[in-house]
Amino acid sequence: MRRQIPEVVVSRLPMYLRVLALLKAEGIDFVSSRGLGSHLKMTPAQIRKDLCYFGKFGRQGRGYNVSRLYKELKQILGLDKQWSMALVGVGRLGRAIMDYKGFIPEGFKLVAAFEKDRNLIGKKIGGVMIEDIENLEKLVKENKVDIAIVAVPSSVAQTVIDKLAQSGIKAILNYAPICARVPRGVRIQGIDPVVALQSMTFYLTRV
Amino acid sequence: MRRQIPEVVVSRLPMYLRVLALLKAEGIDFVSSRGLGSHLKMTPAQIRKDLCYFGKFGRQGRGYNVSRLYKELKQILGLDKQWSMALVGVGRLGRAIMDYKGFIPEGFKLVAAFEKDRNLIGKKIGGVMIEDIENLEKLVKENKVDIAIVAVPSSVAQTVIDKLAQSGIKAILNYAPICARVPRGVRIQGIDPVVALQSMTFYLTRV
Repeated sequence: MRRQIPEVVVSRLPMYLRVLALLKAEGIDFVSSRGLGSHLKMTPAQIRKDLCYFGKFGRQGRGYNVSRLYKELKQILGLDKQWSMALVGVGRLGRAIMDYKGFIPEGFKLVAAFEKDRNLIGKKIGGVMIEDIENLEKLVKENKVDIAIVAVPSSVAQTVIDKLAQSGIKAILNYAPICARVPRGVRIQGIDPVVALQSMTFYLTRV
Repeated sequence: MRRQIPEVVVSRLPMYLRVLALLKAEGIDFVSSRGLGSHLKMTPAQIRKDLCYFGKFGRQGRGYNVSRLYKELKQILGLDKQWSMALVGVGRLGRAIMDYKGFIPEGFKLVAAFEKDRNLIGKKIGGVMIEDIENLEKLVKENKVDIAIVAVPSSVAQTVIDKLAQSGIKAILNYAPICARVPRGVRIQGIDPVVALQSMTFYLTRV
């Protein structure tokens, strides 16, 4: 029986993974809670508490086996398979996303891109064809898209998100700075530079 | 005397602000913890707990005064002033950032951009001059830059971040997918689509 894992713990796992990849690359075989904590700016106790949700990884006195923890966290996060993504919106941001080399090594493959601009439809960027947004639902189903990336202007973002949810998409990465609504069962992650900046200014005013 | 506010609470405040802005725009004067919670996918108890760090905002039975809470949270987050930002790296992502219209209305002004590519230095995008990265330290000081945005390739990101910290920058928004190190007293926020995707796949594998 699996315990319910708090969302905040899940949201930290990708950072664990990144640190473990770094340690692996440096040829480090074992890492203590303290060692992981210093990379992640967390206390050893927090690290142990997070990881204990997923079973016994560490060994008293020796720490965590880096490769094993890496592999198991990858599996826990569902990263032992490839995920198919569709992009909606091929403006400047959308093109930067299509051009981004960081998705493939992590198992995320862009398989389709959608636009309403007739000048862009039919063109290819990085091997991916830009399709008419009118065909979104059909192509999302045909291509078995798992995840959608929304890079359209704020004014149309909610409409696009509704359409994606109707098409059966269960996970959305949203670049539009809106408080988007999604039906139950659909996950959405906002990615917004202003939100990130706003939580730093809190600390800047207290220096 | 101010209580120590947990980082996770601070990181949620920008989302509160966004919801309150939405409610204000809809002409709503009061909102309950339940109302805020439904927008933020949090329980009323969590909302009350978060906001109680900042003093008494709500009134029994009536809820929170939307305008007042908005204004006070803005002040708490240090958003009642304008912040100056510098961008490092004017590639495709950097240009999308320079072109982004969402910073100014939130009080973030891009005042400088830096590149090492001689073909870009001296050009202007959106009224901002692209400067030689060699002049980073000097110009950051002259322009009283508060925050830096890093949009350079991963391979040089740590070097750029070190340079920014040396120049006196205390807050960095980092788009490079690395586990960056910063000296004590410098805050860094990563903004990374892969990390956002990876915490959704956890749930996708459990549908």
